Amino acid sequence: MIDKNSPIPIYHQLEENIKSLIKNGNLKPGDIIPSEREYAEKYEISRMTVRQAISNLVNERLLYRIKGRGTFVMEKKIEQNLQGLTSFTEDMRARGMQTSNQLLSFEIIPANKSLADDLGISEHGPVYEIKRVRLADQIPMALEKTYISANLVKGLTEEVVQDSLYKYIEDTLQLKISGAFQLMEAAVANEEEVKYLEIPENSPILLMKRTTHFEDNTVFEVVQSSYRADRYKFMIDLKRF
Amino acid sequence: MIDKNSPIPIYHQLEENIKSLIKNGNLKPGDIIPSEREYAEKYEISRMTVRQAISNLVNERLLYRIKGRGTFVMEKKIEQNLQGLTSFTEDMRARGMQTSNQLLSFEIIPANKSLADDLGISEHGPVYEIKRVRLADQIPMALEKTYISANLVKGLTEEVVQDSLYKYIEDTLQLKISGAFQLMEAAVANEEEVKYLEIPENSPILLMKRTTHFEDNTVFEVVQSSYRADRYKFMIDLKRF
Repeated sequence: MIDKNSPIPIYHQLEENIKSLIKNGNLKPGDIIPSEREYAEKYEISRMTVRQAISNLVNERLLYRIKGRGTFVMEKKIEQNLQGLTSFTEDMRARGMQTSNQLLSFEIIPANKSLADDLGISEHGPVYEIKRVRLADQIPMALEKTYISANLVKGLTEEVVQDSLYKYIEDTLQLKISGAFQLMEAAVANEEEVKYLEIPENSPILLMKRTTHFEDNTVFEVVQSSYRADRYKFMIDLKRF
Repeated sequence: MIDKNSPIPIYHQLEENIKSLIKNGNLKPGDIIPSEREYAEKYEISRMTVRQAISNLVNERLLYRIKGRGTFVMEKKIEQNLQGLTSFTEDMRARGMQTSNQLLSFEIIPANKSLADDLGISEHGPVYEIKRVRLADQIPMALEKTYISANLVKGLTEEVVQDSLYKYIEDTLQLKISGAFQLMEAAVANEEEVKYLEIPENSPILLMKRTTHFEDNTVFEVVQSSYRADRYKFMIDLKRF
């Protein structure tokens, strides 16, 4: 598969080889790839050349290294569309994935200053605080803290939260969710995220803060989510105005 | 400012105090905050209480710690709106920021397989490769690799690239850019990003891959950007369908 007479550099040919093995599924996410020495011997090329090819693929984030263990094929990520407002449950179900929640806590708390500002209520006003780990096909995907104005969305229970919050709001309470304002950032996982998302220390995560409103623009919900960056990416269609 | 007779826990009162100092600008981004001992002495409260307040603010990412140096106020981030397709130059100028580019390389290369697929051209077809560090007010914000189909966008020069690429395409070439498909992910900075963005090793970054097209949906550009996560966040309005 390596043509030494080609004008295309050998490291580049090796890169393309590995890429097509990943693309056609011969190398799967999480698979370990052969060592530098193995590639060098197999193709009768220098280890320097192999190193360059692999470094390029690591830089492109198609492969990742774990010290002392080897080089692996990057996990496939879930692509979440940012075009419309969907809940985690709706989104994963649309992909045919099984969702579940690990409920960490469910209580009514008094709003602190910034939460009160976000929700447009008075400080110390009653707010449902729901902390959950969101799982898809048994894998922890996101740590989510949801704050809901208790005077706007009544009768929340653990059971409702375990099923689908938006379904309850729209179908049972007959309230019309119309949109959200969303902020996205990247960060290094804090202790809580490392613990509940079962990721190594210093892992990157995607932070999302969503402020959701009804048709009349009343904000009823603030959601702070931490998504595993190794499992998640976001996509969006942009229009030029 | 701490009321020991209040039903509100003391650590929470201290948190709110620090938050309002940040909000009203008495504590500025990058400022060091007093030590645990200093807070404890000033308010005559236990160091444990101070530690809890500061830990909560670090977890909320309003503060960050540097080992052996202290605790600091988080940098303000630029909020980039994802509603419409804008270029880096347009975006920063709209904020009244001075943009500049550090051109790392500018050349015509043969497209590799994946680039050819993204651009819808044949493998080894000619592509402009432009590597730049994008700066706003002298601070490196993003490392950007732009790939442009050389058969579609002609006559690119270093000077054009240093000014504004989209301006050249739209005003000089009279081509109509209509939209883009954008992917966003979080990752840990690779060597190149650490070097050019002048950030510490293991810093988080926001990765963006944009595929931009003309009115007839012909893709002319692929952009791979690495944004500093400490300086950038993205916002979007979502509608519920």
